[in-house]
Amino acid sequence: MRPNRLLLLLCLLLSSPAFSDAGMWTFHDFPSQLVKSRYGADIDGAWLQRVRTATIRLSNCTASFVSPDGLILTNHHCAEACLDEHSTPDSNLIAAGFLARRRDQELKCGTQIADVLMGMDNVTARVQAATHGLDARAANDTRKRVLTQLEQQCEQDSRKAQGGPYKCETVVLYDGGQYWLYRYHRYDDVRLVFAPERGIAAFGGDPDNFQFPRWCLDMSVLRAYGPDGKPAAMPDFLHVRADGPAPGELVFVSGHPGSTDRLLTVAQLQSLRDVDLPRWLLRASELRGRYIQFGKSGAEANRIVEDPLNSLENAIKVRRKQLDALLDDRLLDAKRADEAQLKAKVAADPALAASIGDPWAEIARAQEKEHQLYLPYTFLEQGAGFNSRLFGYARALVRAAAERGKPNTQRLREFSEAALPRVRQRLLAPVPVYPQLERLTLSFSLERMREWLGPDAPVVRQLLVEDSPDTLAERTINGTQLGDPRVRQQLWEGGAAAVNASHDPMIELARAVDDAARAVRKRLEDEVEAPVDAATEKIAQARFAVYGTSMAPDATFTLRLNFGTVKGWQEDGREIEPYTHLAQLYARATRQAPFLVPASWMAARPQLDPATRFDLSTDNDIVGGNSGSPLIDVQGRLVGLMFDGNIHSIAGSYWFDPKMNRAIAVDATIIVAALHKVYHADELLAEMGLK
Amino acid sequence: MRPNRLLLLLCLLLSSPAFSDAGMWTFHDFPSQLVKSRYGADIDGAWLQRVRTATIRLSNCTASFVSPDGLILTNHHCAEACLDEHSTPDSNLIAAGFLARRRDQELKCGTQIADVLMGMDNVTARVQAATHGLDARAANDTRKRVLTQLEQQCEQDSRKAQGGPYKCETVVLYDGGQYWLYRYHRYDDVRLVFAPERGIAAFGGDPDNFQFPRWCLDMSVLRAYGPDGKPAAMPDFLHVRADGPAPGELVFVSGHPGSTDRLLTVAQLQSLRDVDLPRWLLRASELRGRYIQFGKSGAEANRIVEDPLNSLENAIKVRRKQLDALLDDRLLDAKRADEAQLKAKVAADPALAASIGDPWAEIARAQEKEHQLYLPYTFLEQGAGFNSRLFGYARALVRAAAERGKPNTQRLREFSEAALPRVRQRLLAPVPVYPQLERLTLSFSLERMREWLGPDAPVVRQLLVEDSPDTLAERTINGTQLGDPRVRQQLWEGGAAAVNASHDPMIELARAVDDAARAVRKRLEDEVEAPVDAATEKIAQARFAVYGTSMAPDATFTLRLNFGTVKGWQEDGREIEPYTHLAQLYARATRQAPFLVPASWMAARPQLDPATRFDLSTDNDIVGGNSGSPLIDVQGRLVGLMFDGNIHSIAGSYWFDPKMNRAIAVDATIIVAALHKVYHADELLAEMGLK
Repeated sequence: MRPNRLLLLLCLLLSSPAFSDAGMWTFHDFPSQLVKSRYGADIDGAWLQRVRTATIRLSNCTASFVSPDGLILTNHHCAEACLDEHSTPDSNLIAAGFLARRRDQELKCGTQIADVLMGMDNVTARVQAATHGLDARAANDTRKRVLTQLEQQCEQDSRKAQGGPYKCETVVLYDGGQYWLYRYHRYDDVRLVFAPERGIAAFGGDPDNFQFPRWCLDMSVLRAYGPDGKPAAMPDFLHVRADGPAPGELVFVSGHPGSTDRLLTVAQLQSLRDVDLPRWLLRASELRGRYIQFGKSGAEANRIVEDPLNSLENAIKVRRKQLDALLDDRLLDAKRADEAQLKAKVAADPALAASIGDPWAEIARAQEKEHQLYLPYTFLEQGAGFNSRLFGYARALVRAAAERGKPNTQRLREFSEAALPRVRQRLLAPVPVYPQLERLTLSFSLERMREWLGPDAPVVRQLLVEDSPDTLAERTINGTQLGDPRVRQQLWEGGAAAVNASHDPMIELARAVDDAARAVRKRLEDEVEAPVDAATEKIAQARFAVYGTSMAPDATFTLRLNFGTVKGWQEDGREIEPYTHLAQLYARATRQAPFLVPASWMAARPQLDPATRFDLSTDNDIVGGNSGSPLIDVQGRLVGLMFDGNIHSIAGSYWFDPKMNRAIAVDATIIVAALHKVYHADELLAEMGLK
Repeated sequence: MRPNRLLLLLCLLLSSPAFSDAGMWTFHDFPSQLVKSRYGADIDGAWLQRVRTATIRLSNCTASFVSPDGLILTNHHCAEACLDEHSTPDSNLIAAGFLARRRDQELKCGTQIADVLMGMDNVTARVQAATHGLDARAANDTRKRVLTQLEQQCEQDSRKAQGGPYKCETVVLYDGGQYWLYRYHRYDDVRLVFAPERGIAAFGGDPDNFQFPRWCLDMSVLRAYGPDGKPAAMPDFLHVRADGPAPGELVFVSGHPGSTDRLLTVAQLQSLRDVDLPRWLLRASELRGRYIQFGKSGAEANRIVEDPLNSLENAIKVRRKQLDALLDDRLLDAKRADEAQLKAKVAADPALAASIGDPWAEIARAQEKEHQLYLPYTFLEQGAGFNSRLFGYARALVRAAAERGKPNTQRLREFSEAALPRVRQRLLAPVPVYPQLERLTLSFSLERMREWLGPDAPVVRQLLVEDSPDTLAERTINGTQLGDPRVRQQLWEGGAAAVNASHDPMIELARAVDDAARAVRKRLEDEVEAPVDAATEKIAQARFAVYGTSMAPDATFTLRLNFGTVKGWQEDGREIEPYTHLAQLYARATRQAPFLVPASWMAARPQLDPATRFDLSTDNDIVGGNSGSPLIDVQGRLVGLMFDGNIHSIAGSYWFDPKMNRAIAVDATIIVAALHKVYHADELLAEMGLK
């Protein structure tokens, strides 16, 4: 780390409203000296490498290796889709939990993967050289081509490399200020080993989500297998420290925060506040109502809707609080002040000002264009008009058929050679599809498309003259064969010829709207994305020139490390303690879900110590995507399992409030006690070196 | 009208951004001279009285007398509840329409009333004298007592008066700037005579709601009956002008705009934007989803959910666009400028400044208090936690039992002697109650109460330990006898003794939460309503001192008259014509509701002139509550029937945009053609003098 950077960093931190450890730092730019100066702790390269290679990116979450035989610890809610896949009308694994007593009982998760970050290269100079001097639209197209080329070359090279082959992904940091190429070791055979009942994993359900105090054993155990079908050998796993962290202890979270918007301009934040979030929330709330009512139609309906409903309710709570944060004028005023300060510093440096121009105004202009394109783009291209897994298969088949016929760098990025194996895995995985639920979501989304685009919009007129949303959904869902993975495989392998010849009604629907969807995507890319990307690159350059990289980049679902301490907070003058205890769980229970304590926990109650620590809060800076992250002590041991934040943490999308923003973890103490005394999973404890 | 008032009015209008006819004027302060000067039209006292006594306030809408025998013209959607009451699983009057060929076939609407405004007295001085010198809290209590006394005295006096007895209601204008006492002749026997099929009344359904061009025959015909059971004789009815209004013609709307918020302070508008509207929309959107999914469970479910779903979707669209308006920073900036201007004018007049103080700051402080009380008040007292007609009966019985034992002026205002007959009518009306739907809404609202108040809130802990929202809803709805009007009547007549002795589970539920609900209401009244009312009175005084009454008061669901012209508008550079025609209806039809043209209209097509005018737009200033209002020409004839506004009219809650805000009416031409050629209702046409 260059000394001037550190100096700047310290100045900034000291001038900030409260002394804060916030920041989702990359492993290649982690402020070890700051941790040293503040806590006297040595976080050296070996520590960073060990933690990095023990941390896993799942398809939707974070996880970590906790045994030499590839045992993976993550959240229950990160494994819910896998539990759902293996549930049947007679056996609901989400509700009942699961434990493989032998390895041959472990259940393969159809779409899960485990990626481990093995290397990182800064490719900023190569990307910027390729786009230098081009106008925004050409730069946007060129940038995508270059990123695809870099990934393709990296994957080719990795086939000969030690430990290869790797999956290569380019990463955009600082909203375009830096470009990196990350190399992952991918395990695409991930199996389910253990999950507790949802009743204890998500005790309190949606009402308690993002609340603290909490009593959730939000854990599950998976295992990575190699291509040889054997458990993956894992020298760099994390040891579990069975007594959990002490009050005030320095702790680290390694994981993959999904997305933050702390570097957005005021105009972009206003777009979120005025357009994106309210509209999304209206649609999602209605869908929530449809799901809940559907679930009441019978036990099987209730079972199949549980997983999508949980995801939806979680997302609603997040976006609702994000909207609240943006409606708080103090936040926007602070952002305006930040922006004004940066602009003033740029203006004070004539050379810088000349090279930067006024990217803020360009972004504001692009926002107006985005507002115009928002509805057709959201409904046609982003799928808000075609909410159906079967439609998703159809669109993937239709698009892949077209894209695979093009040179790699000419394709839509999600169909590049590097991306195709994952597309194929998702497409062909034998996950259950529920026609009743598909009819619900497709009919709902067609109806809302008609509402928002209007009954006279060309696509709406095209689809809904003979049909209503209900009859179109019914006809396509009932008629399609795409629920059968073999049919999908045939069409995938048959390529463009097979797909174009298909009379499957869902394929026909996807084909019918594809031109319109691609057209609005292209307009959005050219008229919004291109000028915004060009402008954010300029702002990133301005920020680097003025502040260096003393701020962490926004989250991008890539590997980050942050530090903090075990800590409660004050709420309306009350002190919130950083730990909860088992006795409180039983005291708070009711006779009804989601506050019903499972029978296994009632039975084990006499064997359990009521003073056992359950969940805990820290001031680490995390967001969604960090779910399942290990909470790590200074010696690199796992002391907890992140699964949530408090309600104030949701505003962390836009800023970190050190007074109120807290991360929530399952304490290692209750994990060990539960495995031992409630689930008698002593084999697992032994494998983790705990017995 | 005092000349200085008019002068001010003209100056203001001329200085406004666009020349506008906006304003929902009272009949006692109608700017006839302005109409004269602008259009050369004479609107004299006789004209005003004739139109006033021909205009009707229904429980939810406006209507007008159109025959000497008490025939009433209003919208279809204003009669939907009555159609619903008389529908059965085998006969859905909303869908199929209804025509009474003889008077003895007319169907009584259980909860409908028709009020005609007979007289108006300004009582401002009496109210202000009573509250003079009191602090805000005492003034608030006193004001309510005085208003109740005034109403009681007025009703007593009216028993001896010619044309009496009257219903007397106090009216607050200019947010506390004026107090009036209005006397109504009330018809509480209102019967259904005619309604077309919903397919044509609401052609386009929710997707087309608040849109124009439109093709809706949103009409129904009712009849008022006297206490003698005979049709009410009505000398001052409106004659229908069968050819509708000409382009650009001066037209008037007489009716009862429900509510506008044009005089709110910026702090109050921000509360709506940040708290009220987003939260309401989230809940309503989810309920919409539950309703729709419930409706899919069978034909009967679909029938019984239709009316509440239509109301809900209409309200969602309104509030969604209100939120959009408030999120448009131009609106709030304009309001800020208005407020700053008024403050500056006050500050420039030391005597005025001394008497006014800073009421804007007092309101801003009260808003913060309101935010704290918002959730418990909304869920406990406003019923968002107990969304159920049966619970509503139970609460009315429990509260009436307690309140009727108190002196009239000590009661909650809605249980004053003047209000009781209406409470009783609603309580005892034999309207159908659907337990499935009740379970849905009650369970939904209990679940959301738990979500928003939190599982540890005292009321939530009190209700939801043994029970879940579902089981509590099921137990109370299944166990209650309150669905039977005779049981409600017994409890009403049995008074406090009967209600307190009741073990009906819904009565028990209402009793269980009543203390908590009353407590938060009292806090809201004392800590929010009292200081806000005191402050708005001050602002009203400031506004009168500076501007006179040159602005119309906010809408209060009391009688108003406004003027405008038949006029289209420009949308994205396109000209929107002010009329639609019948031929376009057939061209736009699809094979599916809500764009399916009913069979009666397909059959009558050869007899109908395709050039017949259907709906039309004007720049009259109306809002919800004006539904069913007569559109009147300068000679006092009915030329159309208001039923909607365009999408821009929804922002009319906060300001009137003369360029974009348009009211939508059914043209008299299509009304006459439909009654004649589609429905063959020649008796009705004859009674209206049209055959």
